[in-house]
Amino acid sequence: MLSFESDYTTGAHPTVLRRLSETNLEPLSGYGTDPYCESARQKIREACACPEADVRFLVGGTQTNSTIIAALLRDTEGVIAAKTGHVSLHEAGAVEYTGHKVLEIPQENGKIQADVLADYLRSFYADEAHDHMVFPGMVYVSHPTEYGTLYTKAELTAVAEVCRTYGLPLFLDGARLGYGLMSRQADLTLSDIARLCDVFYIGGTKVGALCGEAVVFTKNNTPRHFMTITKQHGALLAKGRLLGVQFDALFTDGLYFEISRHAIDMAERLKEIFAAKGYEFYMDSPTNQQFVILTNEKYAELKESVAMTWWEPYGGDCSVVRFATSWSTTEEEVSLLETLI
Amino acid sequence: MLSFESDYTTGAHPTVLRRLSETNLEPLSGYGTDPYCESARQKIREACACPEADVRFLVGGTQTNSTIIAALLRDTEGVIAAKTGHVSLHEAGAVEYTGHKVLEIPQENGKIQADVLADYLRSFYADEAHDHMVFPGMVYVSHPTEYGTLYTKAELTAVAEVCRTYGLPLFLDGARLGYGLMSRQADLTLSDIARLCDVFYIGGTKVGALCGEAVVFTKNNTPRHFMTITKQHGALLAKGRLLGVQFDALFTDGLYFEISRHAIDMAERLKEIFAAKGYEFYMDSPTNQQFVILTNEKYAELKESVAMTWWEPYGGDCSVVRFATSWSTTEEEVSLLETLI
Amino acid sequence: MLSFESDYTTGAHPTVLRRLSETNLEPLSGYGTDPYCESARQKIREACACPEADVRFLVGGTQTNSTIIAALLRDTEGVIAAKTGHVSLHEAGAVEYTGHKVLEIPQENGKIQADVLADYLRSFYADEAHDHMVFPGMVYVSHPTEYGTLYTKAELTAVAEVCRTYGLPLFLDGARLGYGLMSRQADLTLSDIARLCDVFYIGGTKVGALCGEAVVFTKNNTPRHFMTITKQHGALLAKGRLLGVQFDALFTDGLYFEISRHAIDMAERLKEIFAAKGYEFYMDSPTNQQFVILTNEKYAELKESVAMTWWEPYGGDCSVVRFATSWSTTEEEVSLLETLI
Amino acid sequence: MLSFESDYTTGAHPTVLRRLSETNLEPLSGYGTDPYCESARQKIREACACPEADVRFLVGGTQTNSTIIAALLRDTEGVIAAKTGHVSLHEAGAVEYTGHKVLEIPQENGKIQADVLADYLRSFYADEAHDHMVFPGMVYVSHPTEYGTLYTKAELTAVAEVCRTYGLPLFLDGARLGYGLMSRQADLTLSDIARLCDVFYIGGTKVGALCGEAVVFTKNNTPRHFMTITKQHGALLAKGRLLGVQFDALFTDGLYFEISRHAIDMAERLKEIFAAKGYEFYMDSPTNQQFVILTNEKYAELKESVAMTWWEPYGGDCSVVRFATSWSTTEEEVSLLETLI
Repeated sequence: MLSFESDYTTGAHPTVLRRLSETNLEPLSGYGTDPYCESARQKIREACACPEADVRFLVGGTQTNSTIIAALLRDTEGVIAAKTGHVSLHEAGAVEYTGHKVLEIPQENGKIQADVLADYLRSFYADEAHDHMVFPGMVYVSHPTEYGTLYTKAELTAVAEVCRTYGLPLFLDGARLGYGLMSRQADLTLSDIARLCDVFYIGGTKVGALCGEAVVFTKNNTPRHFMTITKQHGALLAKGRLLGVQFDALFTDGLYFEISRHAIDMAERLKEIFAAKGYEFYMDSPTNQQFVILTNEKYAELKESVAMTWWEPYGGDCSVVRFATSWSTTEEEVSLLETLI
Repeated sequence: MLSFESDYTTGAHPTVLRRLSETNLEPLSGYGTDPYCESARQKIREACACPEADVRFLVGGTQTNSTIIAALLRDTEGVIAAKTGHVSLHEAGAVEYTGHKVLEIPQENGKIQADVLADYLRSFYADEAHDHMVFPGMVYVSHPTEYGTLYTKAELTAVAEVCRTYGLPLFLDGARLGYGLMSRQADLTLSDIARLCDVFYIGGTKVGALCGEAVVFTKNNTPRHFMTITKQHGALLAKGRLLGVQFDALFTDGLYFEISRHAIDMAERLKEIFAAKGYEFYMDSPTNQQFVILTNEKYAELKESVAMTWWEPYGGDCSVVRFATSWSTTEEEVSLLETLI
Repeated sequence: MLSFESDYTTGAHPTVLRRLSETNLEPLSGYGTDPYCESARQKIREACACPEADVRFLVGGTQTNSTIIAALLRDTEGVIAAKTGHVSLHEAGAVEYTGHKVLEIPQENGKIQADVLADYLRSFYADEAHDHMVFPGMVYVSHPTEYGTLYTKAELTAVAEVCRTYGLPLFLDGARLGYGLMSRQADLTLSDIARLCDVFYIGGTKVGALCGEAVVFTKNNTPRHFMTITKQHGALLAKGRLLGVQFDALFTDGLYFEISRHAIDMAERLKEIFAAKGYEFYMDSPTNQQFVILTNEKYAELKESVAMTWWEPYGGDCSVVRFATSWSTTEEEVSLLETLI
Repeated sequence: MLSFESDYTTGAHPTVLRRLSETNLEPLSGYGTDPYCESARQKIREACACPEADVRFLVGGTQTNSTIIAALLRDTEGVIAAKTGHVSLHEAGAVEYTGHKVLEIPQENGKIQADVLADYLRSFYADEAHDHMVFPGMVYVSHPTEYGTLYTKAELTAVAEVCRTYGLPLFLDGARLGYGLMSRQADLTLSDIARLCDVFYIGGTKVGALCGEAVVFTKNNTPRHFMTITKQHGALLAKGRLLGVQFDALFTDGLYFEISRHAIDMAERLKEIFAAKGYEFYMDSPTNQQFVILTNEKYAELKESVAMTWWEPYGGDCSVVRFATSWSTTEEEVSLLETLI
């Protein structure tokens, strides 16, 4: 069975696993205080060109989103997100569970538009009854978005400027950040993101780690008692080494970028083979997630030999189907897929 | 200064106040266990033609909404509401504060459409990833709606049927229920509502009381330990008599209905005077809230002598402005308004 | 049936009710913005000798406690309270419902001892693992306490000093404050309390109002967006006038103090009649709640004609029973009780 | 530096790591649906002699405790725990953060006594005001306890009987369960625990895994939508394989028990060497945590070469210090410690 189901179907990159083995018997202190965590923090600071960054390691994406959002918001505040944002739709209400509303605004290709955001904020404060409403307290964007699309530097800068104007922290969900940074259309670098955002995270789970997300606070703005906050959210690993060693490996000799680029190369080949056979794409995605329109008949047939993700109905007896590549996708797999479509 | 600002600008109906005075020195047990609460409960059961109803008294609207919603939902569930629903927009995130998402669906004239609701539910359960989403756990409607509009018997029946199909309790926010029941276009009676809804409340604050909302559980479905739940929500009055005496007065000799009808009469006159002078209405409201389109100039001028509520911009240098009548609005006030518009 | 069950068995002081009637038909703006609220605020500021105080009106005691505590604490913090504190035991978990732990410490006669508090704080910060624990975020005291006892000026000053040392706000629950201020053993004045506490409330519900608690922030320390916070907690009355008019009446011509003194006079007489007949007291209470030890036989007999509150078993076939006086207790009632005991 | 600081200072047992490597490139479905999770579930069911058990894998201890507790309790309920329980003291308020009070009762050697529990419940329901209090909703015990002590079969049976009488689920925190099962004084087997408890977990993090806790619902009582609940709590790993493969390895050929026994053997030797040199123990612990009384001078000296955990002051210039062994402790390490004490 070929697998293009998601970017979390295989384990960790072999180098990551090897480092876990090599360090396995060293006794290390817990809760993120070990030297591998410290080393990983330092390497990430350097990769972000942000020496003052504070880096913390959490375990998974939903957990990271709900912990960061709850840590940054006051009780009366909500988080602004695109209607299609992961925190709006696919996190089981984890944000609301911590007491906060997700303030959904319209999106385009999965992205928040700066002018739409500005309009929302302007009319919120213009409304005389806004004291009876949820205050906007921060802005959430994902990059790549849930549709695999990317913000340009101009777009994210514009969003960040609106945030600054209204004093709102900008939080970027980088669960698939590597694939965004290594996209052939990438316009934003890691240091751009560190400069424009108040906090973001570098996804490990979907980019070569067994688990783990590296949260980067870029403006000396780590919430007070953040370790206690993560513990309260069930996000503090006793064996913090598991996260430290993995991120240390990923940020040694550019491994994170290299394996992300490989996934992009595989995605570009995958695009080519679908395009060559006349398939259409639901959206033009420059990253590792490709949304292809299949007839329902073709989908049913392909399902016998390929794992992929049904996304949504398209109309005309067709469906949108997602094919994802990852660091572990091989050329052989793509070639084999070519013979099946 | 003439006041058409809202239906909560004056105190209580004089009969209500008189009963508070007459009973003032009687020593009564607390927390809703006194005989006036019991008497009010019995009268409300009769008015609803629902002998098995369980009636509880809470203090205000937002409090009642968030308490009922939190009491009915499991942690993994949210409440479906119209995008324009009071719980969606104007309750300071009180529902989310208790951990629950408001699942907003499109509306028409402030109302949920049964087919839109059914579509939403159908596609929720069709989505293979729905375990990663917030489960729909109940449906919230307001009647009259935030725009003063009313459900017809057919409409509410259709919504209730969708709810039954999916096993969802139907909750009706009746903060202004009296004005809906006494509307000249009223199609739903109190007993219809008791039959169709699983829980609803009869607004007191906006219909002649100093405060108070009477929650009616119609299907032997009061959540377990509901008194403890209300206390936990800060909604349990030590002097429960304040609510019992008021609702007992309001449901004696049809006072609640009589004063609601008066407000409707005043609203109909108000409509006439605006229409006669060529004003247009933003929406055709058959209840005590009228949404009139005024030029911004006219609005600015009128503001000098009339309290009203600016609602939203209309375009073309005009605004939507709300005029509300209540049990205390007099014919003289409406006539005076006529001279000013 | 004689009633000494509690201080919330009768309605409002007649002057309070009269003022509600007199102002009933004036159209007033909602949510605490009316002139009676403003006037009450000003009178309370004066009574507290605290011109910079910010005064807000909430509806009931549990609601006020949970709203204030949630508003002052960060997510990682809890509130320190005596084990016997109302927030610890008798508020249905309303504080925990907002996400905060009540950090219980030992008490004496219902009071927190400054040295016990200091020890608690010292050992908390001495514990190397305190990042894994709930941080102390504020201190809660009640005055009078749940046992009717009072802090002396020296005691409250000492507690306040510990709070200052550790940067913790001191919150005083004054649900029965009038009875504490007018006690014959009162050592603390309203202005002392305003000076020593960061926030406290003046109870209305149990001291002559139908409902209502006046929260006083004394140090320019009102939490940001406090109105929104109260709405979110279901504690914001649309008809804020109900609270404003009542507190305005209570703080006009010293009514609050006068009726509190009356309740104390009645409690002192009650103490005399019990003492004269040889009854013993569970605790020496200088306020309106008296805890008398009755044989279970006597209790059962008295129950036929007197409402009172069973408190706890005492041993030796006896029970602790609470008798409460209030502004509405009459000399006749106490004399009648004398004939029954 | 010798390390006896805790049982989570080293990585995973080599067999566990090896299995992660061997399965690393197999594409597997996410969120706990892969065949290794299924295999681990089956093996755990067998080890528990509980074929109907439902087994779920979460990531860490605090997370597991707060997720299980929130999943089992209604809003009005709290969890009964020993004052020294991990959920009471050392989880950063994670339980309260989900809205629930920890109802602390007295303990003996870290254990709840059945009669103390019964008394607590009896007097709760005897209190006429219990509707104003937090209802007991479940009972939490840890085994081994935070002090390394163990329940006997008679003790846990008695606690379980009280739970049954009051209809309360019994939850056992087995973060260190292996060390309890393999203790030389072990009286309870895994199948006893499965029979007596409604839910418990088998700790992986502290017993040979990199992370992971296996939650066992023993009575067909998994909370509805439990996967959604875990996601909402940030406890659902995308790469569920990380947990499945590890527990599959730990429950193959008795590895979990074998490595736990090794830790016990090391702890017994450690006890011997301390006892031989005349040291006293704070408590007689039959498991892998040993609480030794050291003079502060000795502690300071030993700290130079041994990592251990300062626990609490003992008086007389002494301290209680914890030494923990684990699956990875070697005989050489214990012998080396012997030379230093």
